[in-house]
Amino acid sequence: MPRYRAIVAYDGTDFSGWQVQPSKRTVQGELEKAVNRMAKNPEQPIRVQGSGRTDAGVHALGQVAHFDLPFDIPESGVRKGLATMLPFDIEIKKVEKVDADFHAQYSAHTKTYQYRLSNRAFRDPFKRNYTGYWPRRIDPSKIEMAINDYLGEHDWQSFAASGFQAKTTIRTVTAVKFMNDVEHEELIFEFTGTGFLYNQIRIMVGVLLEIGGGSRPVDDIPRLLAQKDRQQARLTAPASGLYLKSVDY
Amino acid sequence: MPRYRAIVAYDGTDFSGWQVQPSKRTVQGELEKAVNRMAKNPEQPIRVQGSGRTDAGVHALGQVAHFDLPFDIPESGVRKGLATMLPFDIEIKKVEKVDADFHAQYSAHTKTYQYRLSNRAFRDPFKRNYTGYWPRRIDPSKIEMAINDYLGEHDWQSFAASGFQAKTTIRTVTAVKFMNDVEHEELIFEFTGTGFLYNQIRIMVGVLLEIGGGSRPVDDIPRLLAQKDRQQARLTAPASGLYLKSVDY
Repeated sequence: MPRYRAIVAYDGTDFSGWQVQPSKRTVQGELEKAVNRMAKNPEQPIRVQGSGRTDAGVHALGQVAHFDLPFDIPESGVRKGLATMLPFDIEIKKVEKVDADFHAQYSAHTKTYQYRLSNRAFRDPFKRNYTGYWPRRIDPSKIEMAINDYLGEHDWQSFAASGFQAKTTIRTVTAVKFMNDVEHEELIFEFTGTGFLYNQIRIMVGVLLEIGGGSRPVDDIPRLLAQKDRQQARLTAPASGLYLKSVDY
Repeated sequence: MPRYRAIVAYDGTDFSGWQVQPSKRTVQGELEKAVNRMAKNPEQPIRVQGSGRTDAGVHALGQVAHFDLPFDIPESGVRKGLATMLPFDIEIKKVEKVDADFHAQYSAHTKTYQYRLSNRAFRDPFKRNYTGYWPRRIDPSKIEMAINDYLGEHDWQSFAASGFQAKTTIRTVTAVKFMNDVEHEELIFEFTGTGFLYNQIRIMVGVLLEIGGGSRPVDDIPRLLAQKDRQQARLTAPASGLYLKSVDY
């Protein structure tokens, strides 16, 4: 049973997220259908394990998944075979054979998410599913100043969606990046970390938008983190702007 | 009754084309709903007249339409008012007051269409609705040579969809353009003309793809035009790559 690791891109618009759910169209569900068809539907169905879930409407440029095939096929053959069986909103960007102890979720070291925001007075119809939309004027220099306050190990309780349950809310952000793409009227945020709570990135972006728009002070992030209160950060940027960019092992 | 001209962009993916059709979602239908709501639903419904139809899945960057409002509103107010009432896949890019004899269809001088083709081995999920897809290797220099043969006044019978009816199939192409966007793995075609037959642009692109791929000689376009036979040109590029870029008056 050779194990394969696949790098997967998908347009999340028409999916109910990554994870298999009964009678819903999900990325994992479509991948499992394709892998099992390629393997001629073995008696024991093949599971496809991702690095983690993404929500409905969230995209991926570099989601990582692993699966075991009942026979040995060259990597390029797996990629081409899956391409013919997958719907057009999923692309397998790369397939590699990996050791049997590789696990897409447990072996992951850090993940990088990108958030794209369309910052113009009117909505661009071609970006409605691929960016968040924010018509108000933003001062990019304020965001540049504030974003570094996210770096490091913190208790992210103030940035967790209500109802979210986890053993610990301590996570480490190892890198942040902010780009003001004037030509495309987009603001692009990137966050790398050891893990993120449910909706954490979208709340982190929401806080930066309030800072950039002047409704929250530039130095408010350390205070928010210290509060450990999920009522503090209220604006959650929409799913359509969020991309799982890469997973590092 | 002041007359307004609007420049309209739309993502054609979720529309059954431009023209109003009973129980179908169309761009004209959505525009008429929004204009009539903005005008407080007058007894005599306001019609929105476009420069011409676009098919299901075809996009517009600069469709032009006109309509008459029962009262005088500033141009910027019309734009903002419509923005709040239109679905997110339509954007009004500009509104201007025009003379009462302006007519979006009859006053049009030329139209420019753009065709975007994704030329890579695997489908990009983010481009599936916004480009045509052609995995085979293309020689761009062959397309560059051939495309100029479309210029000028011709009888386009060989480039008309079967079933198409028109008084005359003579049209003039006034400009052509071809760009090989290596960075984005896209081929971009542009055609300006006094008018185009049903599916003409998509068949013109199909012929250029056959020429670029070597299955049709580089000098085949003059022969095709001379044949005046719609069985000659068989490949119709998909609607998803086609954009109505601008209309000139």
